[in-house]
Amino acid sequence: MQAIAVRRGEETPSLVEKPRPEPADGEALVRTLRVGVDGTDYEVISGNHGGYPDGEDHIVLGHEAVGVVVDPNGTGLSEGDVVVPTVRRPPNGPNEYFERGEPDMAPEGAYHERGIDGAHGFMAEYFTSPAECLVNCPPSLADLGFLVEPASITEKAIEHARASRSAFEWHPETAFVLGNGSLGLLTLAMLDDSFERLYCLGRRDRPDPTLDILDDLGVTYVDSRTTPVDEVPAAYEAMDFVYEATGYAKHAFETVEALAPNGVAALLGVPNDWTFEVDGGALHRELVLHNKALVGSVNSNVHHFERAVESVAALPEWFTDALVTGVYGLEEFERAFDDDDTTIKTAVEFGSR
Amino acid sequence: MQAIAVRRGEETPSLVEKPRPEPADGEALVRTLRVGVDGTDYEVISGNHGGYPDGEDHIVLGHEAVGVVVDPNGTGLSEGDVVVPTVRRPPNGPNEYFERGEPDMAPEGAYHERGIDGAHGFMAEYFTSPAECLVNCPPSLADLGFLVEPASITEKAIEHARASRSAFEWHPETAFVLGNGSLGLLTLAMLDDSFERLYCLGRRDRPDPTLDILDDLGVTYVDSRTTPVDEVPAAYEAMDFVYEATGYAKHAFETVEALAPNGVAALLGVPNDWTFEVDGGALHRELVLHNKALVGSVNSNVHHFERAVESVAALPEWFTDALVTGVYGLEEFERAFDDDDTTIKTAVEFGSR
Repeated sequence: MQAIAVRRGEETPSLVEKPRPEPADGEALVRTLRVGVDGTDYEVISGNHGGYPDGEDHIVLGHEAVGVVVDPNGTGLSEGDVVVPTVRRPPNGPNEYFERGEPDMAPEGAYHERGIDGAHGFMAEYFTSPAECLVNCPPSLADLGFLVEPASITEKAIEHARASRSAFEWHPETAFVLGNGSLGLLTLAMLDDSFERLYCLGRRDRPDPTLDILDDLGVTYVDSRTTPVDEVPAAYEAMDFVYEATGYAKHAFETVEALAPNGVAALLGVPNDWTFEVDGGALHRELVLHNKALVGSVNSNVHHFERAVESVAALPEWFTDALVTGVYGLEEFERAFDDDDTTIKTAVEFGSR
Repeated sequence: MQAIAVRRGEETPSLVEKPRPEPADGEALVRTLRVGVDGTDYEVISGNHGGYPDGEDHIVLGHEAVGVVVDPNGTGLSEGDVVVPTVRRPPNGPNEYFERGEPDMAPEGAYHERGIDGAHGFMAEYFTSPAECLVNCPPSLADLGFLVEPASITEKAIEHARASRSAFEWHPETAFVLGNGSLGLLTLAMLDDSFERLYCLGRRDRPDPTLDILDDLGVTYVDSRTTPVDEVPAAYEAMDFVYEATGYAKHAFETVEALAPNGVAALLGVPNDWTFEVDGGALHRELVLHNKALVGSVNSNVHHFERAVESVAALPEWFTDALVTGVYGLEEFERAFDDDDTTIKTAVEFGSR
């Protein structure tokens, strides 16, 4: 079968021929439908994040997949089930985090991430997976199921942020998403019903397709070039919830000033080292005197995927039509990795249901 | 009656003569037993924190009180009840935070703090209070009830920190209290049953009475002069829970590195502005990749006071004997405000039950 991989020493993805995998006990065989591309893939391709599977000269890319079960192999799944795989796998036999269904809380060294770190991904015509790492989708999500994984990231971040506010009555009205990439836009569409007023930080000029989506979602666009994050309360209003999806480290600190009293910021970006000055006294004091919280969040588990299936199914069609700017077959897979100002979300199509 | 106040333009407390207050509807009259002194009092005295009541040339000090009801005034309280007052009061009639019993979540401007900001405190022979701001204590706490307010601060911080970890299975083993002042020591005694290994950061040399208490509590002393907070995991171990009670802003940031994966730091200090360099990229990345959280916490509400009553009642006698280094009558009240290396926790005694 064909797969899309990045080889050691290379910085572009290429097609590789691999044997079709055989499901082990407890695993099902899945025929891949579509696999999404996101910023983490670019990091893996460039060698800035993740790592090759042990002893391999390449890593198959892709962690945002949807497929159809072709061989349930004695698991509880059925042939024809549309499924989305979770990303983390135990590296050396089971550990406590996987056993209790919380691989997303496993520390470094206690997981591999398929398509990212230590394990091959899903950009292949077939993949196998333990049945408990496959989440059922309605067949109607066969086309858009590759959005479930990114949506699950947001489900987890919201869950942890809300948990941090659960010791008191919290009635958030305003949410501020930092980043107008595909994850930021997807998150805004998911938050639409829970907040009265939504804001999104970006640094683009109109006309721009992501800003058009913000307009259509009724989201206020905040241009970071004219309004730094810490000036947002003065320029707009203070934010009850901030969702940081930029990986720009200064935002993680400035967001303390953007938050309303009792607000919480979910941090999701993964920046490199960067030393800079902060008024640490003011930030510390503001966190304390106004009961603010910063909550880091990474990855997601089956429960988040299950909620994400519902969230993606509820997205309006105009939104997903605008968000997904390209789906490319294997013969032109390179186009799925192009990134320009007209690209928002792309996927590679391996087959159809 | 006599009260201890700080006058505008002065930076030392002095005795003032004031009329005995009359309870308004819904208020009870309380005869004061003891009022504790803490770091916030020093800040108020020096003019660095808080503010005078409107139109007054002085503020009566004291926010850590215990007293006995002398006139229930038709409230549900009874004459002779031993009570501890909460600290916040609504500034201009009720607001939503007070109405739902969460004055501790009120933003700036929506509260006064008795003895601290905008309202007279409890360092007087009598005080009045709305009955719903008086928390009943067992009579056996008449002597130590002044520890209930600081203990309630810790109850809230722990509650909010635990809430932030409630979206997954969290089994913390290690706790690290930053600061070996009276609040830090009280917190360590309260945490004693919930954590397997306790650590405390300080910067004192032996012999020292606070370090003796750490020894007796079985707490490992970490000297910040030789082991900076971010080097604690290498020197000792990573911490599941950090309780910051120093107001030293760099600790709020370094604590991210001291936390174990999935750990949480409760921040309680109130530093002044202070600009310094941080590796913001590394801190941001570490928060995200290991699901860490920082939770600011200020003040406390009736529920926290109720839990604190139980916590203080459960403290071993050797501990409170060692913690409370002096209780002084009105004739020598100045001694309660002395602060040297032999002072840990002091109180002014206004009367006995």
